[in-house]
Amino acid sequence: MRALAEQTTAEEMPGAERAMPPLRAPQAPGTVPGSVPGSVPGSVPGSVPGSVTEDALTVLSNLVGDDLETCNRVIVARMHSPVELIPRLAAHLVAAGGKRIRPMLTLAAARLSGYSGARHINLAACVEFIHTATLLHDDVVDESTLRRGLASANAVFGNKASVLVGDFLFSRSFELMVEDGSLAVLAILSAASSTIAEGEVLQLVTQNDLATTEAQYLEVIRCKTAALFAAATRIGAVVADRGPEEERALEEYGLNLGIAFQVVDDVLDYGAEQARLGKTVGDDFREGKVTLPVLLAYAAGDEEERVFWRRVIEAQEQNDDDLATAMRLMARCGALAESIRRAEAYGERARAALAAFPDCAERRALSGIVDFCIARVR
Amino acid sequence: MRALAEQTTAEEMPGAERAMPPLRAPQAPGTVPGSVPGSVPGSVPGSVPGSVTEDALTVLSNLVGDDLETCNRVIVARMHSPVELIPRLAAHLVAAGGKRIRPMLTLAAARLSGYSGARHINLAACVEFIHTATLLHDDVVDESTLRRGLASANAVFGNKASVLVGDFLFSRSFELMVEDGSLAVLAILSAASSTIAEGEVLQLVTQNDLATTEAQYLEVIRCKTAALFAAATRIGAVVADRGPEEERALEEYGLNLGIAFQVVDDVLDYGAEQARLGKTVGDDFREGKVTLPVLLAYAAGDEEERVFWRRVIEAQEQNDDDLATAMRLMARCGALAESIRRAEAYGERARAALAAFPDCAERRALSGIVDFCIARVR
Repeated sequence: MRALAEQTTAEEMPGAERAMPPLRAPQAPGTVPGSVPGSVPGSVPGSVPGSVTEDALTVLSNLVGDDLETCNRVIVARMHSPVELIPRLAAHLVAAGGKRIRPMLTLAAARLSGYSGARHINLAACVEFIHTATLLHDDVVDESTLRRGLASANAVFGNKASVLVGDFLFSRSFELMVEDGSLAVLAILSAASSTIAEGEVLQLVTQNDLATTEAQYLEVIRCKTAALFAAATRIGAVVADRGPEEERALEEYGLNLGIAFQVVDDVLDYGAEQARLGKTVGDDFREGKVTLPVLLAYAAGDEEERVFWRRVIEAQEQNDDDLATAMRLMARCGALAESIRRAEAYGERARAALAAFPDCAERRALSGIVDFCIARVR
Repeated sequence: MRALAEQTTAEEMPGAERAMPPLRAPQAPGTVPGSVPGSVPGSVPGSVPGSVTEDALTVLSNLVGDDLETCNRVIVARMHSPVELIPRLAAHLVAAGGKRIRPMLTLAAARLSGYSGARHINLAACVEFIHTATLLHDDVVDESTLRRGLASANAVFGNKASVLVGDFLFSRSFELMVEDGSLAVLAILSAASSTIAEGEVLQLVTQNDLATTEAQYLEVIRCKTAALFAAATRIGAVVADRGPEEERALEEYGLNLGIAFQVVDDVLDYGAEQARLGKTVGDDFREGKVTLPVLLAYAAGDEEERVFWRRVIEAQEQNDDDLATAMRLMARCGALAESIRRAEAYGERARAALAAFPDCAERRALSGIVDFCIARVR
């Protein structure tokens, strides 16, 4: 948390002028500023507006294809342990097929920085291990039963095994980093790990609390999600041994992409179908998580609506039709559309950071990932 | 697990000749070989047989007094986070007053190796952070409600916070190590962390399973407990930049001390009073943990007794007087006395490893700690 705070203050963040209460009422329904693909000003030339959705992920994945394949082999090889339950549980999650966005970011960032060696591959595996460990502990903390549409590891193997295998993957990640031998990389990823834990605790503390400010919400997602994105891209520049400017640019890209990614995720919890998302819609709602759509709808609500929000989010007394009511209230005040607009503003920042690099396939692919993240919600 | 296996194979371990089934029946009651203080052959000259118990801990604690005080300040300072729940929960555990054995081992080992700098202080804090993180996750996994005689962190703050604050302390430990800047230390402590997690998972897997071999039990405690003791003492030699021999000797000391320590802990679960131990007697029993006393009593039992053990440990169907019955059966076949004898054999190994160093206050204190660990059970 400290480390990030030094690099990007809340004041520098798009939307930060709106971050402190009193919140401005969100846009009226129907007006979704900036939500039309391709309309984003200042987008990097060569980015792929208009052909977003899954395509951008495929472009990136093809671009780093060989490296990603090697990285996947490293992941499988290094999650091995003579304690057979460890690879079995880890494989349940790893094989369930995450999108591998974070390791792909490291792989692409290293190539974008002109790196031609192989160190980025193991470091990409480190990033994925940290992410996987976080997921395992998240699912225990959230008491989730589904992950990517399949039974979550804690549902299959129990909470105890999930906590301990998470610890193992986390430690293994540091072992891999130590093998790489760069103290700079170790500093970045250990700081990111602390920050993630801080974000998760902060999320726990703000749960069920509608007095949470938008700044606090931003802090939660910056820590729990964006810090790892930022570290993943930054270490790409570090292995390439580029100067602080490119390191900073790639970190800026990752940080803003991560925030956009999480805001969109929080919107998806109130909109997407379970099959597409791979998780139960309304999970955040049922847990009383105070996400941006909830904060905006609560701020825009009249007294009757606020009574509703306090009951379902703070007291967590929920009936079967409360999720539908919540979604209706959000639609009416434009909370989801406004959230998407905010995500787009962060996405724009991420794209702008790429301007530090010359146009090339990697830059275009990373720019496309911004569109992909936001397009998930359209 | 891998790292340790390379250094000390099962064959080298005292008691390993008894490690594989069929188990030799334990000693008859009344004969407690080697359990008389001061009778241990080959003890390092200057060790403190006869005046063991808490005294040895005081001797060590006085010897490293200033360093320990500074270390305690580092611990408090570095468990800080702007997320206020983190230091509050961590303080609950840290302030509850552990014995700080592990960081004291690092401090004393560094001085024994002739180190005169200050790096060992932060590294001792790293060791304590890893230990504290492990305790937090342990208590969640074991569903413990007491720790050192006080309500456990998970009982006070909930499982979720305990998991996440454990993650934080773990990450913070690596941040501190990175600040120290020694890749050798990072390698030792990251490998130890993986090994601890492997031991915890292996313990989970062998729980409720009386087919667990003594070798598997040894592997569990070697990983979950002794690996950190071994790393704690080894890094003392590393900061002093002594050759591989002294590093190896201190690792050997820590490893064997750790095994002795855990065997005694497992005995204490069936004998000590709660007030003295700071935890509920019979915790392991109620959880169906397959510890050495259980293995020995099961091996020595007749068919009726084995039915009892299978019911209480494997099926975990327990009545109010089952713990008393278990303790009676263990006393009758000498399972506790034999377990202590095994602990003493490991303790002897630990003391023998210290012979690599000239007689001095630090060596005497470390030798005394062996006696202290075993004396807890007398």
